[in-house]
Amino acid sequence: MTKKNQSQRLTKQHKKSHGEIGIFGAEAKEHDSLVCKVSKKIITSLQKEYPQLKFRYRVSVSKKEINEALQKLDKELGSTLYLANSRIKPDGGIVEVNDDQGNWRIILVSEAKFQGKDIDNIKQGKLVGKNNDQDLMAAGNAIERSHKNISEIANYMLNEAYFPYVLFLEGSNFLTQDVSITRPDGRTIVLKYNSGTLNRLDRLTSANYGLPLNVNLCVNRFVKSQDRVIMLQAATICTQGSGEHWSEAEMHSVMLDIAKTSIKALAKDLFDQLTNKSF
Amino acid sequence: MTKKNQSQRLTKQHKKSHGEIGIFGAEAKEHDSLVCKVSKKIITSLQKEYPQLKFRYRVSVSKKEINEALQKLDKELGSTLYLANSRIKPDGGIVEVNDDQGNWRIILVSEAKFQGKDIDNIKQGKLVGKNNDQDLMAAGNAIERSHKNISEIANYMLNEAYFPYVLFLEGSNFLTQDVSITRPDGRTIVLKYNSGTLNRLDRLTSANYGLPLNVNLCVNRFVKSQDRVIMLQAATICTQGSGEHWSEAEMHSVMLDIAKTSIKALAKDLFDQLTNKSF
Repeated sequence: MTKKNQSQRLTKQHKKSHGEIGIFGAEAKEHDSLVCKVSKKIITSLQKEYPQLKFRYRVSVSKKEINEALQKLDKELGSTLYLANSRIKPDGGIVEVNDDQGNWRIILVSEAKFQGKDIDNIKQGKLVGKNNDQDLMAAGNAIERSHKNISEIANYMLNEAYFPYVLFLEGSNFLTQDVSITRPDGRTIVLKYNSGTLNRLDRLTSANYGLPLNVNLCVNRFVKSQDRVIMLQAATICTQGSGEHWSEAEMHSVMLDIAKTSIKALAKDLFDQLTNKSF
Repeated sequence: MTKKNQSQRLTKQHKKSHGEIGIFGAEAKEHDSLVCKVSKKIITSLQKEYPQLKFRYRVSVSKKEINEALQKLDKELGSTLYLANSRIKPDGGIVEVNDDQGNWRIILVSEAKFQGKDIDNIKQGKLVGKNNDQDLMAAGNAIERSHKNISEIANYMLNEAYFPYVLFLEGSNFLTQDVSITRPDGRTIVLKYNSGTLNRLDRLTSANYGLPLNVNLCVNRFVKSQDRVIMLQAATICTQGSGEHWSEAEMHSVMLDIAKTSIKALAKDLFDQLTNKSF
């Protein structure tokens, strides 16, 4: 395909998708709903465990709020805003706790991304590729967009010593082990986790500094560099390495763990409420 | 369009583009070539200015190298690698200087992104949108992928007190002022810089903590947060806010400035070569 044709095709595709949707498909949307649903349930779980504390759920943080948080650290930061209503909307939303000063503090931010339909395609006996003669579809790079929201929330929380961001991954582009799938005609296809055609995990791991996946990284690390100490805000990246779907129970367990870690990190600022004997 | 149809369309589009190309079109590619060309010319300029020093150009850094740099800071970092040959390839490439210890140190990393063809479309009298009846095309989000390479190079340079990453932006999605364009039929269209349909600058500004655009941010900031000091690695984001194209001379000027700032930041490690009287 010539460059010119590519550009035209993109324009055509763009018209259909209105530019906004279209990067992740229908399955992605369904997956997103689950993380959002679980995120809201976390509030109920936390309310039971910490009846002294107040929690809230919200779908977005505005760039204006992020800018204000940055300005508190250094008045030159957070000085640009091109669209007054720019907002960051992690698909699982944001859970916050009310601290002793009455400020809402983030304790959980979640996103869920589905990429790679190879397992379902093979199970259905569907061939893919340009000439519909391949078992596997070469993976795309849309997942790299995930870094944007991670970066925004990290900026918003620069003044905290924890970073409760969890990214749930699912699909054949995020395998950590080989997976064998049998087609309806009995032929078995092996999805190699370390195949360049499929695996896109390396496109995400800068967000956790190459720390292990499926580990709670909510508490910030402080590492020594020359004569300085540097704070690292690592996203917790969780993948279904075997190609399975995330269950509600699994997501709930991971998210509750992160939220509790945040509450502990904030203990000093929740102390009055946590130790209120009059409750 | 239903979700199902969207997913099918994406699959079709994906087949054509092989997943890899296709996010930025032909104009983007041309733009990329310029930044790459200028980046190489920077070496010639630096060689003239600092004949005592050795410079080199390379097109990529491997994830393996980035992991090794992270491990030097903390042995738990940089522990994951799914594809042995994963590489980071900023489109303008990487310029390095050889320090007194014989180590190559990055002094310039550049990327150039073109997004938004509205100005050219209007000049040609081309209507766009679903029914080909609009003057302006709603902007996409592919630009958010830029954060990935910024994050990778920031990790690679965590041990440095400077971050010589420059992102050049061009196209109607990155305006900082209103622009009037006249169609061949004489009708004039005003592109409002603060239109949500067009402007995508806010999708990038987390990479510079909301600091001003078109300013050299190569030297890291250290800001006080509670009982800590935090290092900020800000990308230098340069945009043609009036919708013009970047000229070679303009790019060269910005890039040379960044590279020189890096050299100064590294002065202690280049001292022996810089002060070698025998030269």
